[in-house]
Amino acid sequence: MSLFLQLVSVPEAIAGIRNLAIKCGDESVPLSEALHRILARDVHADVDIPGFTRSVVDGYAVRAADTTGSGDAIPSILNLRGRVAMGASSNHYIKSGDCIYVPTGGILPEGADAVVMIEHAEQLGEEVLVKKPAAHGENVLLFNEDFSSGEVVCNKGRRLSSQDIGVLAAAGCIDVPVVKIPRVGIISTGNELVQVSQKPMPGQVRDVNSYVVASFVREQGCRPVLYGIVRDDREALRSAISHATAECDAVMISGGSSKDDRDMVAAIMQELGEVLIHGIAISPGKPTIIGRCGTVPVIGLPGHPASAFIVLIAIVRHLLTAMTGEKGSSIRILQATLGQNVSSSKGREDYVRVAVRNGVATPLFGKSGLLNTLVRSTGVIRVPAESEGLETGTQVEVMVW
Amino acid sequence: MSLFLQLVSVPEAIAGIRNLAIKCGDESVPLSEALHRILARDVHADVDIPGFTRSVVDGYAVRAADTTGSGDAIPSILNLRGRVAMGASSNHYIKSGDCIYVPTGGILPEGADAVVMIEHAEQLGEEVLVKKPAAHGENVLLFNEDFSSGEVVCNKGRRLSSQDIGVLAAAGCIDVPVVKIPRVGIISTGNELVQVSQKPMPGQVRDVNSYVVASFVREQGCRPVLYGIVRDDREALRSAISHATAECDAVMISGGSSKDDRDMVAAIMQELGEVLIHGIAISPGKPTIIGRCGTVPVIGLPGHPASAFIVLIAIVRHLLTAMTGEKGSSIRILQATLGQNVSSSKGREDYVRVAVRNGVATPLFGKSGLLNTLVRSTGVIRVPAESEGLETGTQVEVMVW
Repeated sequence: MSLFLQLVSVPEAIAGIRNLAIKCGDESVPLSEALHRILARDVHADVDIPGFTRSVVDGYAVRAADTTGSGDAIPSILNLRGRVAMGASSNHYIKSGDCIYVPTGGILPEGADAVVMIEHAEQLGEEVLVKKPAAHGENVLLFNEDFSSGEVVCNKGRRLSSQDIGVLAAAGCIDVPVVKIPRVGIISTGNELVQVSQKPMPGQVRDVNSYVVASFVREQGCRPVLYGIVRDDREALRSAISHATAECDAVMISGGSSKDDRDMVAAIMQELGEVLIHGIAISPGKPTIIGRCGTVPVIGLPGHPASAFIVLIAIVRHLLTAMTGEKGSSIRILQATLGQNVSSSKGREDYVRVAVRNGVATPLFGKSGLLNTLVRSTGVIRVPAESEGLETGTQVEVMVW
Repeated sequence: MSLFLQLVSVPEAIAGIRNLAIKCGDESVPLSEALHRILARDVHADVDIPGFTRSVVDGYAVRAADTTGSGDAIPSILNLRGRVAMGASSNHYIKSGDCIYVPTGGILPEGADAVVMIEHAEQLGEEVLVKKPAAHGENVLLFNEDFSSGEVVCNKGRRLSSQDIGVLAAAGCIDVPVVKIPRVGIISTGNELVQVSQKPMPGQVRDVNSYVVASFVREQGCRPVLYGIVRDDREALRSAISHATAECDAVMISGGSSKDDRDMVAAIMQELGEVLIHGIAISPGKPTIIGRCGTVPVIGLPGHPASAFIVLIAIVRHLLTAMTGEKGSSIRILQATLGQNVSSSKGREDYVRVAVRNGVATPLFGKSGLLNTLVRSTGVIRVPAESEGLETGTQVEVMVW
């Protein structure tokens, strides 16, 4: 009996796959290795940032009120009282009528409340002519204006960007609490598969999926563990799945392209654990299996690489983000205007490849099994299950590859 | 005399920095390590893809003409002549009135030109009732429909994505010609700097730039080489720059926050090579230096991390892409509608941080030296030098962090 009679919707599949996720543990890594890792705890500033009121330009620290009304013709004339050294605390004090030279990043002396840029001043011996009024607070960054000591500078669940790394550095976070990298086992099945290094004979195809799935897993911040090609043999497949689930935090089995093979994968999963979903109302990607062996999530992906890739983007990434606790989308969304009508079957969610240029998303029609449209496209748009298609001019969200 | 009198425009700075680039050499890496590397040569398919006409569903290979007019009430009745095995060549031949079972991915037998899905057929002993007509070519992927043998599957200069890796696998490219990873030396200068592990005293700040620049460089696919903090001492700085330029393909010196320090950096670069640009009409980031020591490009970045980051995004990435030969933008662009007026000074290119939500870019006003707006923003928009600002509702391109 075909299990395909119980297709589940994409939202149900996503909810089901997220339910399988067990949150990964935490570890600490040096700040220099934390880029793109997922922050495991909120990080707080250990100091005020900046720790002192500082100049953001090269110029003269002044009392702003002393410069009121100054201009090229009638400059304010101030007495130069010295120079702030970089990296040193300041024991200077500015009283009305005084100024002190301060380099960019230097500490603002007591009594001063603004800095006049050197471009707007002229030094004549011990006097400085100010030719443009400075407003209170001008050209200074105030004590703890950026972050206060104890304030959260970076939230847990964030995938750390270059700027985040900068903020963590400023906050003194030299050992960063991050989520452990999930290990994802990858198995390719099918008697038709040969190694990529081999030339396929008639009826054979290269094992593209091991590479596509591993690359996707790596892009999502996980570590792929390859178990190679397994023939369509029940014992061999059972052994490979047992092996992979013992060593990994999740396992992806691609292939079992035909119904018989898929049923074999599902039967083994049922023996070792549980099949929750067998068949999703998605195109391409319908013959997807979601289950677990022991507590380890196991996903049966379609055999064709182009279909498998859609399932990775649309469904599997939700498993991985649930495992790492990543907040926000792990893929990029681009707003665009649909450049051509797209028709679709009601009752299934269609993923249509589009090329985006100047804000216009042009569908790349053609068989979903083609790899060339996968490479030529910018990403995919989603045609919801309840829709029979999308009209030209519709605003669409492109999930960018 | 201030060199700032010769500010160059951003396009001039980009042209100048690209001119300094020396193209990196090539190397070969295993396909499993090629993700995100830059392809050094066009890669051609070594076989036809697919290598045989194959079914994309589980079903019955037929002559489409035999199914014309079939339906639930009056099915076409065909003789079942066997079954195609996965991974094997087919010695079957279909004549009119025949059909053969073929699993997904199986070879289409000679004589057949379409596949009827099992859902639309019913097997009764040696006969198959077809209940829906199949069109010529339906449910099959044709011989070399995806790529022909010898065809370029991936162009040189491409940063390899997961799908690209898949296409290279299908094309048998197990050793991938890629551009060598450029080594980028990073020096932080300034008497005010302390290690990130230290608590800064009044007047001191942590060395955030080493981390920000290293992370940015890594994100751009290059390898950061850290030379640490160098004091504002001519001999120490000269020695560090000589050292770094001898070992790296490019060098970034951040800091020398004050004019005096910047002039020292420029003077040393002039001794060891040439200063081409000292000051760019960009905000933030004006005090940027572009030059070379020997043949190695050397960039003097502003001392403040927030300014340095803008210069990395706006200017320096063009150097790195010219070194690797990467085609296309190495950063993401998002189209958005400006949610608020932005004013700007004519004659300089302003980079304004924005938060994008639902296609609307809201400027995050505030001092350019703040790190918190860098982290809270989605990216920056560019206000061109010839413009005095942008009005609410303008379509803008957001350079996404």
